[in-house]
Amino acid sequence: MYYCDSRLQYPVRVEKPNPVFAKMLQQAIGGVEGEIRVCLQYFFQAWGQRGPKKYREMLLQTATEEIGHIEMLATAVALNLEGAPVTLKDEMAKDGAVAAVLGGMNPRHFLPAGLAATPENSNGVPFNCSHVYASGNIAGDMLANATAEATGRTLACRLYEMTDDPGMKDMLAFLIARDTMHQQQWLAVIEELGGYKEQLPVPNSFPQSKENQEFSYVFMNSNVDGSINVNGRFTEGPSLDGKGTYTVMQNKPMGQEPVLASGPKEAHAQNEQMAGILGRVKAAVLSS
Amino acid sequence: MYYCDSRLQYPVRVEKPNPVFAKMLQQAIGGVEGEIRVCLQYFFQAWGQRGPKKYREMLLQTATEEIGHIEMLATAVALNLEGAPVTLKDEMAKDGAVAAVLGGMNPRHFLPAGLAATPENSNGVPFNCSHVYASGNIAGDMLANATAEATGRTLACRLYEMTDDPGMKDMLAFLIARDTMHQQQWLAVIEELGGYKEQLPVPNSFPQSKENQEFSYVFMNSNVDGSINVNGRFTEGPSLDGKGTYTVMQNKPMGQEPVLASGPKEAHAQNEQMAGILGRVKAAVLSS
Amino acid sequence: MYYCDSRLQYPVRVEKPNPVFAKMLQQAIGGVEGEIRVCLQYFFQAWGQRGPKKYREMLLQTATEEIGHIEMLATAVALNLEGAPVTLKDEMAKDGAVAAVLGGMNPRHFLPAGLAATPENSNGVPFNCSHVYASGNIAGDMLANATAEATGRTLACRLYEMTDDPGMKDMLAFLIARDTMHQQQWLAVIEELGGYKEQLPVPNSFPQSKENQEFSYVFMNSNVDGSINVNGRFTEGPSLDGKGTYTVMQNKPMGQEPVLASGPKEAHAQNEQMAGILGRVKAAVLSS
Amino acid sequence: MYYCDSRLQYPVRVEKPNPVFAKMLQQAIGGVEGEIRVCLQYFFQAWGQRGPKKYREMLLQTATEEIGHIEMLATAVALNLEGAPVTLKDEMAKDGAVAAVLGGMNPRHFLPAGLAATPENSNGVPFNCSHVYASGNIAGDMLANATAEATGRTLACRLYEMTDDPGMKDMLAFLIARDTMHQQQWLAVIEELGGYKEQLPVPNSFPQSKENQEFSYVFMNSNVDGSINVNGRFTEGPSLDGKGTYTVMQNKPMGQEPVLASGPKEAHAQNEQMAGILGRVKAAVLSS
Amino acid sequence: MYYCDSRLQYPVRVEKPNPVFAKMLQQAIGGVEGEIRVCLQYFFQAWGQRGPKKYREMLLQTATEEIGHIEMLATAVALNLEGAPVTLKDEMAKDGAVAAVLGGMNPRHFLPAGLAATPENSNGVPFNCSHVYASGNIAGDMLANATAEATGRTLACRLYEMTDDPGMKDMLAFLIARDTMHQQQWLAVIEELGGYKEQLPVPNSFPQSKENQEFSYVFMNSNVDGSINVNGRFTEGPSLDGKGTYTVMQNKPMGQEPVLASGPKEAHAQNEQMAGILGRVKAAVLSS
Amino acid sequence: MYYCDSRLQYPVRVEKPNPVFAKMLQQAIGGVEGEIRVCLQYFFQAWGQRGPKKYREMLLQTATEEIGHIEMLATAVALNLEGAPVTLKDEMAKDGAVAAVLGGMNPRHFLPAGLAATPENSNGVPFNCSHVYASGNIAGDMLANATAEATGRTLACRLYEMTDDPGMKDMLAFLIARDTMHQQQWLAVIEELGGYKEQLPVPNSFPQSKENQEFSYVFMNSNVDGSINVNGRFTEGPSLDGKGTYTVMQNKPMGQEPVLASGPKEAHAQNEQMAGILGRVKAAVLSS
Repeated sequence: MYYCDSRLQYPVRVEKPNPVFAKMLQQAIGGVEGEIRVCLQYFFQAWGQRGPKKYREMLLQTATEEIGHIEMLATAVALNLEGAPVTLKDEMAKDGAVAAVLGGMNPRHFLPAGLAATPENSNGVPFNCSHVYASGNIAGDMLANATAEATGRTLACRLYEMTDDPGMKDMLAFLIARDTMHQQQWLAVIEELGGYKEQLPVPNSFPQSKENQEFSYVFMNSNVDGSINVNGRFTEGPSLDGKGTYTVMQNKPMGQEPVLASGPKEAHAQNEQMAGILGRVKAAVLSS
Repeated sequence: MYYCDSRLQYPVRVEKPNPVFAKMLQQAIGGVEGEIRVCLQYFFQAWGQRGPKKYREMLLQTATEEIGHIEMLATAVALNLEGAPVTLKDEMAKDGAVAAVLGGMNPRHFLPAGLAATPENSNGVPFNCSHVYASGNIAGDMLANATAEATGRTLACRLYEMTDDPGMKDMLAFLIARDTMHQQQWLAVIEELGGYKEQLPVPNSFPQSKENQEFSYVFMNSNVDGSINVNGRFTEGPSLDGKGTYTVMQNKPMGQEPVLASGPKEAHAQNEQMAGILGRVKAAVLSS
Repeated sequence: MYYCDSRLQYPVRVEKPNPVFAKMLQQAIGGVEGEIRVCLQYFFQAWGQRGPKKYREMLLQTATEEIGHIEMLATAVALNLEGAPVTLKDEMAKDGAVAAVLGGMNPRHFLPAGLAATPENSNGVPFNCSHVYASGNIAGDMLANATAEATGRTLACRLYEMTDDPGMKDMLAFLIARDTMHQQQWLAVIEELGGYKEQLPVPNSFPQSKENQEFSYVFMNSNVDGSINVNGRFTEGPSLDGKGTYTVMQNKPMGQEPVLASGPKEAHAQNEQMAGILGRVKAAVLSS
Repeated sequence: MYYCDSRLQYPVRVEKPNPVFAKMLQQAIGGVEGEIRVCLQYFFQAWGQRGPKKYREMLLQTATEEIGHIEMLATAVALNLEGAPVTLKDEMAKDGAVAAVLGGMNPRHFLPAGLAATPENSNGVPFNCSHVYASGNIAGDMLANATAEATGRTLACRLYEMTDDPGMKDMLAFLIARDTMHQQQWLAVIEELGGYKEQLPVPNSFPQSKENQEFSYVFMNSNVDGSINVNGRFTEGPSLDGKGTYTVMQNKPMGQEPVLASGPKEAHAQNEQMAGILGRVKAAVLSS
Repeated sequence: MYYCDSRLQYPVRVEKPNPVFAKMLQQAIGGVEGEIRVCLQYFFQAWGQRGPKKYREMLLQTATEEIGHIEMLATAVALNLEGAPVTLKDEMAKDGAVAAVLGGMNPRHFLPAGLAATPENSNGVPFNCSHVYASGNIAGDMLANATAEATGRTLACRLYEMTDDPGMKDMLAFLIARDTMHQQQWLAVIEELGGYKEQLPVPNSFPQSKENQEFSYVFMNSNVDGSINVNGRFTEGPSLDGKGTYTVMQNKPMGQEPVLASGPKEAHAQNEQMAGILGRVKAAVLSS
Repeated sequence: MYYCDSRLQYPVRVEKPNPVFAKMLQQAIGGVEGEIRVCLQYFFQAWGQRGPKKYREMLLQTATEEIGHIEMLATAVALNLEGAPVTLKDEMAKDGAVAAVLGGMNPRHFLPAGLAATPENSNGVPFNCSHVYASGNIAGDMLANATAEATGRTLACRLYEMTDDPGMKDMLAFLIARDTMHQQQWLAVIEELGGYKEQLPVPNSFPQSKENQEFSYVFMNSNVDGSINVNGRFTEGPSLDGKGTYTVMQNKPMGQEPVLASGPKEAHAQNEQMAGILGRVKAAVLSS
């Protein structure tokens, strides 16, 4: 269970409120790279954790920290909206700069929200919990979490570049540092479980003897002319898991041209689909 | 641009059609761990690739292979649906087993689709392209791709365990092998770019001097009683990127209790929100 | 900011795990009447609160409690999934009861989640944050919150009736009690602000002199034959806000038949839409 | 069943078409506070009404009125779009004001719709019918409806402030008045059913003896330091339903630290999750 | 504006309530082939109609009829739910047939809705208004409408086959007939505007001289081996619009291999993406 | 299965990059009228095709072509984004034109994507695969495809008008030509299957003797005053399928006023709904 303190984890100051930057910040709240996503993702991984207790603990604590990050960003959005233009009355005709601000604002920041943050991305698309990845497999989850923090830190860096408000830069410098740690944290779990050699392929509990090993370490080349224009760490040498050797193969059809049976009459395809040339005759009979 | 061959990449056979397994297979088509996702994800990463040409090439070719995987699974769904019960007329009352099949089927496999696969997950939720992750940052993208293949292989292994149809097991054994390779492939790119030491933190192009380095390698403990119950590779020793040392710190408020200004009158909060005790008086005046 | 304790707010016990009940419980996690919704809704109302500080405090504390409710329900789902059938191999043909369980389970509880809760409703539709209502108007928000708790308590009561597992009934009896309080809590805010007389119509800060008061307390009858078959507290007597008297009026067109101008040629309607009889002539000229 | 008259319920005039205001108006059409929502919500409540016939009647008639409100707003959007700039050709470089209009317009108003309204909110997010709340419980539904009208009226007031077009102000003054009535109407149903004393807690048909009454009228304080900073109508005195007395309690864990069993092997967690220290040994055996 | 009559357009009777059939019927309410879609689609086409007044009229009247069809289907769902099992208490263990019904029901029909229809499809996915197609082009719209009625009638026929309840068959026989007419109605508009010769290509107001006419009537063969295995009405002979002759061409690249510039430094790709071999050097400098 | 060539199907050149036009182009990528939709729609129709092999072939080849169209548009977006402003630092205050560009850009083009296309529409709403229509009925599918190409070509024409960049106009002139062909192609299938006379009503495999033929060719007039203001090809004369004669009828209720039974007590409606006047008494007893 959970507790709150009404103070913020880290200070949030806005010197020059900018409602267009408020719109941009929303990506870090409700975007798929944002804080609602990581918060819920870590919680659901914790709550469904069937492995060592320590991982439940770790996930719970970082998830709890992330609530505080949503809070900081929501506060930042609210502060950036103070003083925003909220009328189209005459400015639109007179002042291009105000017009641009109005055109560039998220209308929902004012219309339904009354100058506050929303759980949506920078285009106003609401966060959708299908982005909460929790696979029940610790290695898959740690990669998902590292991804979230890598794209999240990239986003935060882009926001940092976008503003010259010192308060906002200070807040983002803190959040970027936390994203640095969280990348390190999730990938360190894979390291402590033995790294790639032990953990790959995910899941490591499925015996590779059951997969079709002819294709387990082969880069498939799909170039139409069969030319091979790509090579790298993934086309030759030992595989990362130490269990195979990378090779290259030209993609080609090994399977059949599929033939599906006609559907049952209850599926009501057109007559012509159901019975070839005879279809029209049957149709005439059926509908008479 | 692209070409097709009407044959499949690998054979798809179904010996004992099972419409409930058809529903399960949908997760591998239109689930967030499925093939539509990786196909579009690799394509959009390729089409937006601003780095070395070789990565565009690699992504294009694997994306192209993945279209063939959607095709194989869609064919598998269609074959599993052949002979499925399509009526509630009397079976429901008489035969528990048929009733269970009908109750366990995806109704949309018959009703709008006429016994064919749909671009949806195993609950019939349509795939949503917000899951196509393409960050413009190669390391973030490679982690995203490895995640997709790790959760995708886990899913395929679970489907493998769920069926005893030899044709389905053979198809899944092939797809599982390809997922093995694709995990190796994406993570190998990070290796060839120098591994964690060079690539972390993502993005590596943001000078760490600008982040708040006091918090860059610190595990934040959010336990209410301050007890530290978690330790591991991520709480002590050198960080994975070799640029710091993991430590632990108790989470505590460093920021203020935020105070938001009253909104403008045009935002029409309740009077009581806008002016404290005086609100009701003002309201009376305004509405008279 | 926030803290966690790894124990639950209230005990969660499952004596007879039932994966179909696990599916049902999801409605209370990720349904629109569920706990993710109220948790985020109260948080966003708190974080955007521009009124008296006390309401930010109250909202924060209840939001924090709600995280613990999601946690309890997610734990209940995970426990109900233990021992669930995870294969279609042969049971489907042999045992109608097992088949029914499999058909009645949420496939995503096993396939991507590995026997854990997901942030989705009982049909597997992911929670969508557009349901987080925060209007910036305290009265609107309190009504929204009371609605969420009223429909949430109704849902919890239905779940209570659905199970005879003593552990589940005990957990639900606790959650139902909390929903009782939360209904009381949010509506009490409206009372302490003066009740309907002060708070209605919402927003009370818009002068009613500006609305078209001819229609402010009139029940519009839309029956095609003009007969009035409805009467009640809302068709006669003083209005709840004490500012008007309910009456009834037959709905009828007061406005015009709207006429829209033809679009610009760049909008490329069909020629026939753009220029009446002359359209086809013009089209011939344009395309020559 | 239903009938139409091609005239509008109330006049819709636009003197100074403004395509940015057209975008704003969309919130009142397809936003969650908008008219499509209330229209469908009242219809589905009516069509599923299992209570006294009078409520089906009332809901049907107001739902029918609401179709006419969508129509008025859609007409207003179309009229505001007349004369909108539909080309980026050269204006972008030359004229900041036109550029701002273009940047501030909803691109979908022109591109797919050809200068007409869409069933979407002010950010172009399509209305999603999960917002149609119909619980089968009349008190829950009436609160949901009052919420919709309270947030809807707040939205309409904000739109009223945003424009100085006399036609638009006149139309909005009418819609605001109707929202006044509809708030009164839905809450009056609760009154006529006995008010809070009879209707709370919702559902009133679940015997409170079955809920855990220790927690039914208690404000849970979740402050980390146990300090109680909130008090009001909801922390002391008789509850609104007259069935209890408000008190305050510090939130604390009453439940256990949850322990989930390892998943079955078919769930393919990593070996390390499944068997603690022994996991790697088993894995080696399994994969050999 | 609109009026209602509390009676149904056509009788709705259910002799043998079947909650699984209730789930199936939902596809006709909230599926993309269903009645909410056509109702809103025809309304939005009418309300945005910028062509001859007659089409606004026609669309309004059919849209109005469709509200009555949603109503009939919602009533049918509610009647099919009467007597449905609403508890898992003991049936699950004892009676396979009841278990199958429970497993096959839509849980949301009971849990949040209290045995009533919802605006969702047969998998419980809410209707999303992005399916309301209104292009501002009458020919595009008429094709969209004919599509909706063609797939809608196919759906209704499949539902007809699925049930043997005489009341349901009677209702569906009526709705199927209306779908017959509506297909005829929308396609007849294209006929009265001159048929394919006048109306194709859509939009007919864009001068074909501006399109790249070399590719206007060519079937592109994308077979990898260049073999042409398809021929038909669309590969030879005059085109349907009488303005060209169908031919076949092998698809091949006419364009370049695209080269995108490196992004700006603010986009924070990895260093290696931004500057080839020199990247790592620069990165070292930047981060020092 | 599939192959790629790294060159484009047709050249894509951008002379004057315009990030606002990049936003507009997104409608043709991820809008419902766009290329992802047709690509996946033709693929799923092909993969589920249960009719003559020739239609599978045709659909596969055109689907394959469409991947190349997404690729061209994604490239066009990326090129239009080169040089886009990516900072709000000072321009906002100083330069209205730059501000307007920033306000008019899609923030997600920079923030998460790093200046690349996304699988979203022009408002940043992600493509949702529920728009992939594949009904299993060839005539329904061909109408759906013709609709997609008609609205797609209308969209492309509007984009053509919006720009004066010669490279963009050249690319669009190619895509418009392909849309011309694809309209012809899909409708030609209906022609080769016998045209309206053979194919209507869809599905033609449902015997019309089973529909309620009294209503099969009747235009329902829903005007409240019974006046008939619409006539055309669809109100008199032979129907398009040659199987009936169009007539007009005034819409009127033929059905009953529906009466739903009270729900079971487990559904927990309010007492007043469940038992009329006696409800309150019962409620008092129950809760005591």
